[in-house]
Amino acid sequence: MLTMQDALARLTAYWTDQGCLVVQPMNTEVGAGTWNPATFLRILGPEPWRVVYVEPSVRPDDSRYGENPNRLQTHTQLQVILKPDPGNPQELYLGSLTALGIDVAAHDVRFVEDNWASPALGAWGLGWEVWLDGLEITQFTYFQQAGGLNLEPPSVEITYGIERIIMALQGVTHFKDIEYAKGVSYGEVFGQAEYEMSRYYLDDADVATNRRLLELYAAEAQRMIDEGLPVPAHSYVLKCSQAFNVLDSRGAVSTADRAAEFGRMRRLAGDVARLWVARRDELGHPLGVVEPLPAAAAFETVVEGTAPRTLVFEIGTEEMPPSEARTARTQVQRELTERLAGTRLAHGDIRVHATPRRLIAVVDAVAAREEDHVRTVKGPKTTAPEKAIAGFARSQGVSVESLQTAEVNGVAHLVVEKHEAGRAAPAVLGDVLAKVAGSLRSAKNMRWNDPELAFTRPVRWLVALWGDEIVPVAVSALLAGRETRVLRTAAQPRVSVASAESFMETLAINGIVADADDRRELIVTGAQDLVWDSGKIDVAGESALIDQITYLVEQPTPLLGTFDERYLELPSAVLTTVMRKHQRYLPVRDADGALLPMFVTVANGLVDVELVRAGNEAVLRARYEDAAFFYRADRQLPLAAMRDKLSRLTFTDKLGSMADRAGRIAALAGALADGPSPTLERAAQLVKFDLGSQLVTEMTSLAGVMARDYALHAGETREVAQAVYEAELPRQTGDDLPVSLPGALLSLADRLDLVTGLAATVGLPTGSSDPFALRRAVLGLLAVHRAHPALSGISLTDALAAAAALQPVEVPGRVLVDTGEFLAKRLEQVLVEEGHPVDRVRAVLPHAGRPSFADLLLAQLGRLIADPRFLALAEAIQRSRRIVPDGTAASYDPSVLKEPAEVALHEAVVSVRGELDAATDLTHFTAVAGRITDPINTFFDDVFVMADDPAVRAARLGLLATIRDLGADLLDWPQLRL
Amino acid sequence: MLTMQDALARLTAYWTDQGCLVVQPMNTEVGAGTWNPATFLRILGPEPWRVVYVEPSVRPDDSRYGENPNRLQTHTQLQVILKPDPGNPQELYLGSLTALGIDVAAHDVRFVEDNWASPALGAWGLGWEVWLDGLEITQFTYFQQAGGLNLEPPSVEITYGIERIIMALQGVTHFKDIEYAKGVSYGEVFGQAEYEMSRYYLDDADVATNRRLLELYAAEAQRMIDEGLPVPAHSYVLKCSQAFNVLDSRGAVSTADRAAEFGRMRRLAGDVARLWVARRDELGHPLGVVEPLPAAAAFETVVEGTAPRTLVFEIGTEEMPPSEARTARTQVQRELTERLAGTRLAHGDIRVHATPRRLIAVVDAVAAREEDHVRTVKGPKTTAPEKAIAGFARSQGVSVESLQTAEVNGVAHLVVEKHEAGRAAPAVLGDVLAKVAGSLRSAKNMRWNDPELAFTRPVRWLVALWGDEIVPVAVSALLAGRETRVLRTAAQPRVSVASAESFMETLAINGIVADADDRRELIVTGAQDLVWDSGKIDVAGESALIDQITYLVEQPTPLLGTFDERYLELPSAVLTTVMRKHQRYLPVRDADGALLPMFVTVANGLVDVELVRAGNEAVLRARYEDAAFFYRADRQLPLAAMRDKLSRLTFTDKLGSMADRAGRIAALAGALADGPSPTLERAAQLVKFDLGSQLVTEMTSLAGVMARDYALHAGETREVAQAVYEAELPRQTGDDLPVSLPGALLSLADRLDLVTGLAATVGLPTGSSDPFALRRAVLGLLAVHRAHPALSGISLTDALAAAAALQPVEVPGRVLVDTGEFLAKRLEQVLVEEGHPVDRVRAVLPHAGRPSFADLLLAQLGRLIADPRFLALAEAIQRSRRIVPDGTAASYDPSVLKEPAEVALHEAVVSVRGELDAATDLTHFTAVAGRITDPINTFFDDVFVMADDPAVRAARLGLLATIRDLGADLLDWPQLRL
Repeated sequence: MLTMQDALARLTAYWTDQGCLVVQPMNTEVGAGTWNPATFLRILGPEPWRVVYVEPSVRPDDSRYGENPNRLQTHTQLQVILKPDPGNPQELYLGSLTALGIDVAAHDVRFVEDNWASPALGAWGLGWEVWLDGLEITQFTYFQQAGGLNLEPPSVEITYGIERIIMALQGVTHFKDIEYAKGVSYGEVFGQAEYEMSRYYLDDADVATNRRLLELYAAEAQRMIDEGLPVPAHSYVLKCSQAFNVLDSRGAVSTADRAAEFGRMRRLAGDVARLWVARRDELGHPLGVVEPLPAAAAFETVVEGTAPRTLVFEIGTEEMPPSEARTARTQVQRELTERLAGTRLAHGDIRVHATPRRLIAVVDAVAAREEDHVRTVKGPKTTAPEKAIAGFARSQGVSVESLQTAEVNGVAHLVVEKHEAGRAAPAVLGDVLAKVAGSLRSAKNMRWNDPELAFTRPVRWLVALWGDEIVPVAVSALLAGRETRVLRTAAQPRVSVASAESFMETLAINGIVADADDRRELIVTGAQDLVWDSGKIDVAGESALIDQITYLVEQPTPLLGTFDERYLELPSAVLTTVMRKHQRYLPVRDADGALLPMFVTVANGLVDVELVRAGNEAVLRARYEDAAFFYRADRQLPLAAMRDKLSRLTFTDKLGSMADRAGRIAALAGALADGPSPTLERAAQLVKFDLGSQLVTEMTSLAGVMARDYALHAGETREVAQAVYEAELPRQTGDDLPVSLPGALLSLADRLDLVTGLAATVGLPTGSSDPFALRRAVLGLLAVHRAHPALSGISLTDALAAAAALQPVEVPGRVLVDTGEFLAKRLEQVLVEEGHPVDRVRAVLPHAGRPSFADLLLAQLGRLIADPRFLALAEAIQRSRRIVPDGTAASYDPSVLKEPAEVALHEAVVSVRGELDAATDLTHFTAVAGRITDPINTFFDDVFVMADDPAVRAARLGLLATIRDLGADLLDWPQLRL
Repeated sequence: MLTMQDALARLTAYWTDQGCLVVQPMNTEVGAGTWNPATFLRILGPEPWRVVYVEPSVRPDDSRYGENPNRLQTHTQLQVILKPDPGNPQELYLGSLTALGIDVAAHDVRFVEDNWASPALGAWGLGWEVWLDGLEITQFTYFQQAGGLNLEPPSVEITYGIERIIMALQGVTHFKDIEYAKGVSYGEVFGQAEYEMSRYYLDDADVATNRRLLELYAAEAQRMIDEGLPVPAHSYVLKCSQAFNVLDSRGAVSTADRAAEFGRMRRLAGDVARLWVARRDELGHPLGVVEPLPAAAAFETVVEGTAPRTLVFEIGTEEMPPSEARTARTQVQRELTERLAGTRLAHGDIRVHATPRRLIAVVDAVAAREEDHVRTVKGPKTTAPEKAIAGFARSQGVSVESLQTAEVNGVAHLVVEKHEAGRAAPAVLGDVLAKVAGSLRSAKNMRWNDPELAFTRPVRWLVALWGDEIVPVAVSALLAGRETRVLRTAAQPRVSVASAESFMETLAINGIVADADDRRELIVTGAQDLVWDSGKIDVAGESALIDQITYLVEQPTPLLGTFDERYLELPSAVLTTVMRKHQRYLPVRDADGALLPMFVTVANGLVDVELVRAGNEAVLRARYEDAAFFYRADRQLPLAAMRDKLSRLTFTDKLGSMADRAGRIAALAGALADGPSPTLERAAQLVKFDLGSQLVTEMTSLAGVMARDYALHAGETREVAQAVYEAELPRQTGDDLPVSLPGALLSLADRLDLVTGLAATVGLPTGSSDPFALRRAVLGLLAVHRAHPALSGISLTDALAAAAALQPVEVPGRVLVDTGEFLAKRLEQVLVEEGHPVDRVRAVLPHAGRPSFADLLLAQLGRLIADPRFLALAEAIQRSRRIVPDGTAASYDPSVLKEPAEVALHEAVVSVRGELDAATDLTHFTAVAGRITDPINTFFDDVFVMADDPAVRAARLGLLATIRDLGADLLDWPQLRL
């Protein structure tokens, strides 16, 4: 049995062998090894640094008196920093697992996207969680920024969660049962401290004292910054952070405090970082300076061929996030297509494949050479003086005799025809592929040890073959070759490829399923086969998850796992959320769709199935045990107590706590309702209360679902429980909508509050960035409104204003206008996507504030558009608009109108306008206003509007303006294409 | 090359193999690994605990901006706790050195007495510094108390000073040059932090902030104690300590602060300790409970012999302090002699030997058995009733017939004679030796893993042989055998001994020189041989040091080392102090007594001479380099600046700073002087200023010596420099005395201040305890006074009162009286030791306050004692005292005196008294008062004092009382034996 202290010793020894220094934990409390100066300061600046150390990390908020099996106020991190990126940090990391005795080929070790940011400290990085048979055991990050400074070179941070790793290796289910050293358990050694420090952090720490400590620390940090001493300053920033965390765990941090403290810490940390960099500069970088990798130089001589051959280009990366892999695939397809089109190289189909670790372009029948080409250089006219002609010939390096004649724009010119030979394929492809690889970009790009490239994750190798030959592609420090990489755990992780034609086969032989469709098929059929005799997989329902899994593995190996039936007593949403979101497991259902106590996980590669199954089952058991623990605890807490906890949850810095937000939602829902409703009233008191539950704190996507469960359990009426649940609907596009009216009102109020508050403080989303999901919120608003005819009386525009009035910040009028437009834009998009002609959609868009009314109008339009009366009316209205200059008022002096046609029209208009006040829809409007179609047609036939007499002309234009404005409150008539 | 991080890893691995847990450094600043809860809390209570950890130990006061080669504000300790004492901790420790690659047989590894106490934390222990070739590399302590609680079981603490060990192993002379990891130096990694944290601690830490932090921490610690949470409370006590240390290094701790803070920390730490013990009790001791070792049972069957044989009894210990070894030797000699005398076992000479590790008693010719013995039991008188006689016989188990008759006090009694056979020697010796071993006690005793024994250091084995046979001695858990132990580094550290007769030879064969005289001889002749051709050793002058060395080694191996000549430029007192006090090296001198650049050190055992020499030379070089560094720095500081630093040195909590004390000395010296003296005035301004120098801070015994040096260098007059130096004289018995009057006045003032202040606050010394060396101070007072006739006018009694008036505390009259008596007692002792008859000494003792006057009187007494006139006078005075009842006043009515003899006497008395007012010495007194000898003899012959007439009787007694009181101000006449 590997004890915990042996594991620490082995990891330390392993990394020491990799050239790491060993330093000691920080001698003041830190929340993570990242804040030890051996990381935070050393990742700054140009000096190289490799270090390994243990860091007991203190998180007051994780205090659980030692009772929670997986959560501790102090847990043990083992931290490794590699600066610069050694080029193979993942391989080095896998070596460390081997050093722990873990057979990485038998286990399922995966790098699952997980990025890291600490805005409060101006720091972020990209990387992964490392999973061992589904258990997160390590955080792996390429640091990009710290203290607001770009990190050049970037560092690799590897943070092992030691207790979790050891629990898995030792097969124990409570941290106290870890064998810390031979014969001594973790609980025996640290149990008392865990309990007592939990007491301190949760119950007994003096708030006033810690507040004063925080102030004193911050002042001392500032003072040291002013003295130019980053080391003591940093130590005091850490003390600030700990004091703040203590206050937080004691529930003593107000929203305003939090914002202010984060701001102060960010500023102090930034100053420390800048000072440190300056001091190291002054000291002349005692540890030296990292030299960037030299740019690779492609060999110049290229072998030429004659026959067309296949081209294969592989860009090898570290594990890309699934969405990025898919995007990159499209990008390569487009880039390659366009760039090949820019050459004169004949080629066949272009196919691009993506896996987590590679992008592969295969191009059929790429010609051996570009086609030759004749270029005509235009010279002087044939009639030009001889001197000019001779000059042109000389400048082109040809004799006057060899000049030819050609017509340019009908004039005869002397020209030179230049025959240009096409280049050989490898030379052409070398340039093209270098540009394709170099132009790769993702939504969020990172830097690694490469001097120039930036991408979602590091690019580590290139394969470029045209037939048997290597295409000389050089991109920054990378040089293409014929060596590809297969699974890292393979006996031979690097494989030489004979030719482009055999490339895909070589991958296949080595287990890599390069084609995403193939992988998906293997996953689906594999999973179905596994559950064949017990249940089924909802392939359609799980489609998004299956798509994601497809891009998480290169060699899908579905495994069936089971869990204890007793966990089926948990709400099924809990079970599936854990499976899908946390573990990427496929749930298994019986014929009625009920969950079975089993799951399918998809390992990567030819793992030891029993081992990996057991590991994943243990992880799921721990997660379900946790959930059950929380579920039981939550059910013992009165709803009011849960609701009270919302005041400790920040919504946003400026918009107060979740309790504040829930209060606003309740108030707004009441205001929107058209009368008192006991259900609404009670539901409004409860809305969002489950955010205070432990289970929802752990799994936020269960908000609402758990509210319903807990409310029912607490004896609330079915209606109230349902309304509280429905307040959260819809959670994403296509999700269920509230059915009950109280639910719908709460749902609207929730989204109205979110949108106005954030629009005023953060701004409306622009481009692809929408961190608070305002688009989704607005779509929800529209969907709920449209689904409930009873709500059609509510104007969302007015409701936004009402919501704005409830915000703790001022919402400027301009913001409300913008928000209205944003909402209209979303409605337009939805309606168009639903298949409505865009002109009609735009015509009803003024009613975006009452989308159900817009729906009504659209429906009527659909019918009326074939109605000649409507068409004539619409035509008349549009014609009037075309004639009447902008700004013309809809009023006129009827006494100057003398012609019979204009008088008849005037009378018709008067009659119609009298009735139109009551016209609330298009059908009615057409019925009433239709009465003017004959008079107006006569008018246009008989009357010359632009009479010489200005008074007459004005009256006629006023009359037409009146017609122009008919139904202006119903449709944006000019949008309508008739 | 072993890097520092490799060394840490090796030590950690070694101790892990010995069953130690590995824990992490404390995550708040601590001054030493001892305060990590893994030590401070875990050594409390009955649970077993073995741990190893690294502790970067922060000592703000040691900040030197990274400039001092050997001193750091943060140094690295490796801390090991073994609880309970495993019985062989020294051997385990030596194994750890072997693990570091140190050949402990080739090097000179020694355990040199060094006890540890932290009164501020109620903690103490006994143990050693471990020396590697003269370099202190480890602190080794048996903890006895912590938080005011007795430690049961005691723990072994081993604290490695990693930087020092590595510097020695790597042969570098500055910590920054340590190879921390392969290719990376300590300076490169930690240099900046060392500089910046030094800046913080020495220059930039905000005093007000740290003061407030201290208060907040203390309050939080108290609060947690009140909540019953020792773990967070302890953490806050540590924070208190750090804040206090920061204040101290910033020079912001007043004497009052220090006393108060130490008191508070002691109280808090005590509360934490008690709470921890209580909580562990409550928790049922999760780690179990240490069971005490079982008592050894001596085997019952003893082999009997016939012929007398030698007895040898060896008590094997861990390294005893030299003084304790000597004392224990005497103790064993006495105990064994007395206890053998209590048996009837014939035996020859008893010789006892002592080395650092053993006490050996050898007794010649111990008889095989006790002599047989007849014991007579007294019965009733022969004349007693038959019934009584029969009863007696029955009670003795004999028949009436067998009763015999004997005279007891002249009366005939019936008696029984019991013949008792002597027991065999082994049985008798078993009891005797067990008592001898069990009764061993030292001045300061400790506990270890033995359930009952207590001694200066652990007793680890017993050898007890009578001839060939083991004597069955069982003492607590120890059982005697025939296995002795030789040097730990021997190939066979344990050796079986064939017989008592061969015991000493066995030791000798194994290199152990058991006899102290032999060892001394080896040391002296060895050292002399080594320096024969270059210089000499001052054997007489270094006698105390040689005695000490004699008890530091078992197999003396003198080595000659050299040092760079340039260090001879340092004051020779500096050089010799380092050699003697710090290193126990013998200085080497040329024919004129001047120091040569060499030294002799005495290693233990057959070490690799070159290696050990080189090691010791490096240590001396480092120490001299340090001293030279301080010396240069000190000389650059103005005297006033050095003097200013005294205000930061506490004298005692109640008596203020050293600056306060120096001020009092100056004032008092001025008051004692009989006129103004520019030299005294200036010297008084400077007195004790060198306590503010770095060199004296390091080597307090150089106080005064450095003052003279620095004063001269700063341009003070030779007289002033000398006076400041002499103020410190005499430093010990037999030391030089001040020659100059200003020096003498300052010396007196110094000691008067010390004695009155401490008598009032701490009390006068009692028994053997005299922590402030008040006896020495008083002896100094007397010596200085006696040496300076010019001071004879000063009454030390008055001077004590004057000194008392200057104290910051009230000195009660009673204390002054006691102090005077204490001083008289010392003077009596000194004078008696000088050979003066005790009666005369006591006779002059009333003048203890003016010891030079007492000297004068004693001298006169020496002459007068042969003078009949004086004798007669003294006889008369004593006779008068005997006759006159106590309390009789020396007055009478002369008119009632009628007898001629009494009238003559009266007249003689009147005449003498008139002249005696001017009698200032005994010679004069005798000359004058001698005139009454004749009249008084006649008076005694002729007059019956106790006349019937009360008036006459009263007058006669009054007359005699007047004579009784003659010269009462000169001598305590009754003391004089004539």
